[in-house]
Amino acid sequence: MSIKDPDYLRLYHLIEDHLLDCIPEVDDRASILTDAMRYSLLAGGKRIRPVLLLACCELAGERAETALPFACACEYIQTYSLIHDDLPGMDDDDLRRGKPTNHKVYGVGMAILAGDGLLSSAHEAMDRDMLLYLDRPELLKRRVRASHELAKGTGCMGMVAGQAADLTAEHGAPDPNMLSFIHANKTAAFIRSSVMCGAYLGGADRELLENLRVYGDCLGLAFQIVDDIEDVVSTPEERGKAVGGDAESEKLTYPAIYGIETSKSQALALIGKARAAVEKYGEAAQVLCCVADYLEKTIS
Amino acid sequence: MSIKDPDYLRLYHLIEDHLLDCIPEVDDRASILTDAMRYSLLAGGKRIRPVLLLACCELAGERAETALPFACACEYIQTYSLIHDDLPGMDDDDLRRGKPTNHKVYGVGMAILAGDGLLSSAHEAMDRDMLLYLDRPELLKRRVRASHELAKGTGCMGMVAGQAADLTAEHGAPDPNMLSFIHANKTAAFIRSSVMCGAYLGGADRELLENLRVYGDCLGLAFQIVDDIEDVVSTPEERGKAVGGDAESEKLTYPAIYGIETSKSQALALIGKARAAVEKYGEAAQVLCCVADYLEKTIS
Repeated sequence: MSIKDPDYLRLYHLIEDHLLDCIPEVDDRASILTDAMRYSLLAGGKRIRPVLLLACCELAGERAETALPFACACEYIQTYSLIHDDLPGMDDDDLRRGKPTNHKVYGVGMAILAGDGLLSSAHEAMDRDMLLYLDRPELLKRRVRASHELAKGTGCMGMVAGQAADLTAEHGAPDPNMLSFIHANKTAAFIRSSVMCGAYLGGADRELLENLRVYGDCLGLAFQIVDDIEDVVSTPEERGKAVGGDAESEKLTYPAIYGIETSKSQALALIGKARAAVEKYGEAAQVLCCVADYLEKTIS
Repeated sequence: MSIKDPDYLRLYHLIEDHLLDCIPEVDDRASILTDAMRYSLLAGGKRIRPVLLLACCELAGERAETALPFACACEYIQTYSLIHDDLPGMDDDDLRRGKPTNHKVYGVGMAILAGDGLLSSAHEAMDRDMLLYLDRPELLKRRVRASHELAKGTGCMGMVAGQAADLTAEHGAPDPNMLSFIHANKTAAFIRSSVMCGAYLGGADRELLENLRVYGDCLGLAFQIVDDIEDVVSTPEERGKAVGGDAESEKLTYPAIYGIETSKSQALALIGKARAAVEKYGEAAQVLCCVADYLEKTIS
């Protein structure tokens, strides 16, 4: 299932057209590294995080184009996390979006480096963008805040911590307290920080920041619940990767603890709360609402 | 062999005392992640990169303490690269600094995440430091330049590219052109960027920047040659890790292409050039010269 909203597609194509802009030109002698990075970057996906980032920048009043290096950074981080997640020792997956995973094509060593290279390039892209604003203090400040937000949401107080807890919790006793930590960090923290990153770049005022924080938090939590549900109810063709892996590796998931129906109603409640936080902005929040709609339809 | 220069030791202890300051406080449910990160951070080492960073900041005229978050970032990046380098699929090493490698203690999955967490924390630390200087434009600019320098030297135009080339060159034909790329990137780029990062933080003028660039480049190249030589001539006890691994995995190294004696004289020439670039600063460049001396003695 894809998102067909024209406003979403406009931002989607913007990021697709510029996705490789912030990958450094690498010497031929290391070209295999950029091949491996590009392979996973170009494997498709809905680009939800960078689209949300660009949409929030627009909602706050700046042109989406000005946020492109940060949107690229955001997708580089998402892609690195998937490459490392798929490795043996982690989820050990052979397929991702219907294609062989990075390490199946380039070997484990190069896949580790491709992930490291993408994470490094993400921060390099943001730093390089900041260099362009050294003499425009207000715009530089926005970028420092935006970069910090993304670093925080994807590091040890966000995504990486969530992945570590997820790994620890495998084969463990079902623990709702651990589950809520995993959900809040593994997926939600990154989605919220993509939203907030765009908001900072756009120069959002305090009220908009607060509303977008609620939107990002609720949408992010719903996102992980929907992903957990999908792992149970869909076919490998629909998912583009193996399904049922969560149950097989005894992962701690919403359906495993609460069952499918309760998980669905929790997700729907969060989606409603996310939508309510931004509805007042009307058409300007169209992209944010269509992502909420998309999530809702996925489990309806 | 250790470095006993009192000025070096002063900066070494400064970084030792503050090394964990920039590791985020992590929730108990992910404490295994920070345990794994701390394990490798605290496994010892000469801390040459962060000491060089602090020394260059001082040489440029600022207190070393002001550069601590960047010095931490530098050592976090160094430590992440070692953890990932030791993984199966990369060098697959069991020992590092006389202790079991990270994945031998925490498992492959957690070691991957510990590396990712350290790299993320490095950038988070620099971003967080920038937030403190939002209203001091000149000091903020220095930090943006410093952060970009470190990102560039350790990413796809530096360290990660060098590691990728190193991995590609294993078992390949001896190729001096490839060797020079590996040396310039795997080790030298990071050492030069640590030097330049400190120079930017300290507010170095154009002439000092240029001299430190020469120093960093030459020292960095010498560093990798000396490391290659050590892998051939020292015992596991001296190295704290397995030796002879380069030859075993048919790595492309200086001794493999040029032999030990030519490698030594190339290293000595580079060390001399590094020293010459900073000698004019006299006692203010004491730490930089003592690192050059240390390298020289290692192979004498």
